[in-house]
Amino acid sequence: MTAYIIGLDFGTESARGVLLEAATGAAVASHTHPYRHGVMTAQLPNGRKLPRDWALQHAPDYVEAAETVLTALGKGREIRSIGLDFTASTPLPSLADGTPLSLLHPDEPHAYVKLWKHHAAQAWADRITAAKPAYLRHYSNRTSSEWVLAKAGQLADEAPHLWREAARFIEAGDWLVWQLTGREVRSKCQAGYKVHYQEPQGYPADAVPGLIEKLAPPLPIGHPAGELTAAWRTKTGIEGPAVVAVAVIDAHAVMPAVAATQPGVIVGALGTSACYMLLDRSCKDIPGIEGAVLDGAISGLWCYESGQAAFGDVLAWFVRNFPRGVDEAASFAAYNAAAAELPKEEVRPIAIDWWNGCRVPLGDSALTGLMVGMSLRHTAVDLYHSLMEALCFGARRIVDTFTDGGAAVERVILTSGIAERNPLLMQMMADVLGRDIEVPGITNATAIGAAIHGAVAAGLVADYDAGAALFGAKSVKRYHADATSVPFYERRYRHYLSLCQDSRIIEVLHDLARPASPSDGGSSQDGSSR
Amino acid sequence: MTAYIIGLDFGTESARGVLLEAATGAAVASHTHPYRHGVMTAQLPNGRKLPRDWALQHAPDYVEAAETVLTALGKGREIRSIGLDFTASTPLPSLADGTPLSLLHPDEPHAYVKLWKHHAAQAWADRITAAKPAYLRHYSNRTSSEWVLAKAGQLADEAPHLWREAARFIEAGDWLVWQLTGREVRSKCQAGYKVHYQEPQGYPADAVPGLIEKLAPPLPIGHPAGELTAAWRTKTGIEGPAVVAVAVIDAHAVMPAVAATQPGVIVGALGTSACYMLLDRSCKDIPGIEGAVLDGAISGLWCYESGQAAFGDVLAWFVRNFPRGVDEAASFAAYNAAAAELPKEEVRPIAIDWWNGCRVPLGDSALTGLMVGMSLRHTAVDLYHSLMEALCFGARRIVDTFTDGGAAVERVILTSGIAERNPLLMQMMADVLGRDIEVPGITNATAIGAAIHGAVAAGLVADYDAGAALFGAKSVKRYHADATSVPFYERRYRHYLSLCQDSRIIEVLHDLARPASPSDGGSSQDGSSR
Repeated sequence: MTAYIIGLDFGTESARGVLLEAATGAAVASHTHPYRHGVMTAQLPNGRKLPRDWALQHAPDYVEAAETVLTALGKGREIRSIGLDFTASTPLPSLADGTPLSLLHPDEPHAYVKLWKHHAAQAWADRITAAKPAYLRHYSNRTSSEWVLAKAGQLADEAPHLWREAARFIEAGDWLVWQLTGREVRSKCQAGYKVHYQEPQGYPADAVPGLIEKLAPPLPIGHPAGELTAAWRTKTGIEGPAVVAVAVIDAHAVMPAVAATQPGVIVGALGTSACYMLLDRSCKDIPGIEGAVLDGAISGLWCYESGQAAFGDVLAWFVRNFPRGVDEAASFAAYNAAAAELPKEEVRPIAIDWWNGCRVPLGDSALTGLMVGMSLRHTAVDLYHSLMEALCFGARRIVDTFTDGGAAVERVILTSGIAERNPLLMQMMADVLGRDIEVPGITNATAIGAAIHGAVAAGLVADYDAGAALFGAKSVKRYHADATSVPFYERRYRHYLSLCQDSRIIEVLHDLARPASPSDGGSSQDGSSR
Repeated sequence: MTAYIIGLDFGTESARGVLLEAATGAAVASHTHPYRHGVMTAQLPNGRKLPRDWALQHAPDYVEAAETVLTALGKGREIRSIGLDFTASTPLPSLADGTPLSLLHPDEPHAYVKLWKHHAAQAWADRITAAKPAYLRHYSNRTSSEWVLAKAGQLADEAPHLWREAARFIEAGDWLVWQLTGREVRSKCQAGYKVHYQEPQGYPADAVPGLIEKLAPPLPIGHPAGELTAAWRTKTGIEGPAVVAVAVIDAHAVMPAVAATQPGVIVGALGTSACYMLLDRSCKDIPGIEGAVLDGAISGLWCYESGQAAFGDVLAWFVRNFPRGVDEAASFAAYNAAAAELPKEEVRPIAIDWWNGCRVPLGDSALTGLMVGMSLRHTAVDLYHSLMEALCFGARRIVDTFTDGGAAVERVILTSGIAERNPLLMQMMADVLGRDIEVPGITNATAIGAAIHGAVAAGLVADYDAGAALFGAKSVKRYHADATSVPFYERRYRHYLSLCQDSRIIEVLHDLARPASPSDGGSSQDGSSR
């Protein structure tokens, strides 16, 4: 009987699985299942309205997706290992047996999973950051509204009865591993980046009252969490040992799939947002980055995390609002084709990619995007081109943040569907970064990366290098920085940087984000007076 | 036989005429004729390519349009007077007998009419302004690339043989009056605003070598230039005295048509660009405005000129690039309807209306537009709404420039098709200005204003007040500033102003407008290197 491994990638809207042959590394099948309740930003399943900036999910959706995908890929097959990645930070409150509080209190928003892009906990993040705790040292001395401390703080303050009832506050990735194996095993990757867990100190002790009792000591990546339970075997039809690995954050999971296992390699996972992970032998405290965790992505190395809060989302926003075809794909094709024909022009607008805030280096989710330099001569394609540039400039600023902070960047790997589908953007990345870019030829890279974590955990391969060689990308497309384009984009990047560092712009953006008090006469939502 | 008067309005794309009953003031007919060669920005009639920023017209097109319109309105009718307004500054070089040089040198770009929006003479405007001549005192100490000195300077430097051959350099409005009457009669309105003519000094003597000999002393508005020639009577069939008035600039012509004849009244003529004319008893030298001329629009009063280089053009740019309907009108209707439903929101982007440069207060045609504060939540309608706001903020800044400079603004009249068709924009104007707005109910207001100039010139009415009463608007729609909206827009205007005054933004916009030298490696126009 042929032996297989499975990788599960739990994204924002759906779960995707891949089935790989354990001996040859060949990817033989994949399956995707959307979450039944998707992302809840407007209302709960019962119709209760949610405030602005909320983003919830329903934990049983993950179980349903896991069952569907595992059955589709594994039924009747010998499965040696299952690796699993998940969006983070995506925590939920549960009872001591793992029962999500949303099953007990379906009417309470705070009982649900808070998705990574739940941004309503900004005030708690600000408060924690303002106290300047020592445990934020590896995190540019700040915590994010997307992470566990802020989300826990909001839950504890706004729904203290639920906070008391919650024996556990747990990342959805860890929670799903618990469902699959019957064992509550936390991930050091998730704990490190999202709860500021560092050794030897452990979790921050006094960040949010009651939190520490709701956590559990984490295990390193590449370790087995347990085996698939009998109940799951019954319902999925999976055979074989089915060792389940410790969960890993989705962005970080991709690294072994694209052979990013050595110091000096930076991987950009370009999705709706973009994450940039850089491996290093030692930890430099680099101002502006999101965090640094030992064993965060590849065992034995520090991995810095960094990112753009909106990446593909920015272009998708544009083509959805200003369509050029029967559907989004057709619009993208039309804009990309037209943008490729544009001459290099100094007069084209400069945009800043803050459509969803600035994650690095400013860590400021209140910021919003801008575009300067529009004239009557410009067309929609010019604006699209400027947005593409803005994405590249944001990436450049991140790479510069790393190098300015003392970390070496020797190779740049960009991966995702966007990287494969948009050669114009990738060439622009090479020209803006002034570096050669590698785009690995691999489908479902994140899920394959998760599968490699499973293979390492089950001992099917010796280490991540061996896992990458067997299961990872087999080809790479290289984009070379163009000598005439580099100085052109260098000048435009200086304009981008000048605008990013303009305190007057930042002040206006902050004022726009902060609703005026009713006494200012401006917060009414009653439309026009005509 | 019923007696009539005719008003002719020579705009950017076409000429429009109105026929009014001299006794009752009733408008009984109108006729429009587009210019055969339109606006030439890309090439001459023979196919010769034009550089960027050029905008030419062909003088015989005006004659053709005048003949068509006068015939349509006047054939077989008793015409007492003809008043004529024209875009300005729109000068052409001609022989001493008025023959346009373009008829002799059809292959030479500099032989043609330079339309007001020909912007290729910026360097000459900059040079004249830098010399700080005293004659710019009433013009914020600067001249514009759109005006006569800069356009004459460019012609003299780039085509010295044509400059030598040109016995006359003359506004198209004056040139057309010359054609109609056989007499070269210049307009003090055009000379005042566009050639810096002021009494008692006259024209600036040494601005451009050779220019002063190509000009002629101007007559005040409301004066007769002559009567229609026999040749024109023959070809149009017009009967009666047909006294032709001194030409007037189109923006200024509208004032008597909307009963703006008293000090303290500001009129905004909202077209593709916007002109704001304010009447005053005395002249304050107001920093930032375009110019102040005694008898510039209404006899006996000073009239300040001010404007936004793009107004309707900004919204038209948006709906053309991002259509929402089968044609432009349908797109405007869809956007306006959707914008009217938007709640008042602080978080909506702030835009600056510099899509065609900033005319007032900065006098800087190199500037371009910007928009800040975009997020993934915003839609195309939000952006459209922000552009509408930007137009109102630009108008507010102009009104503030006047009042800060010591001129009283007591009534605000806004007029044009835009003002009549877009009540949402007019209400926003009232709310942003914090003042009541009057929109007169009148069709073809500019042409009717021109007709009133003719009636005054022919002595058919005692003065502009009497002309306004007989021929002008008979109704007015009032928009009252809304008490809850005023503070909301006040806050947003502060953001607008903060961005307008941001030197770093201005610096970036200037850098974008100034092409890099080839040695910078970035001025190549050869597209991508892929």
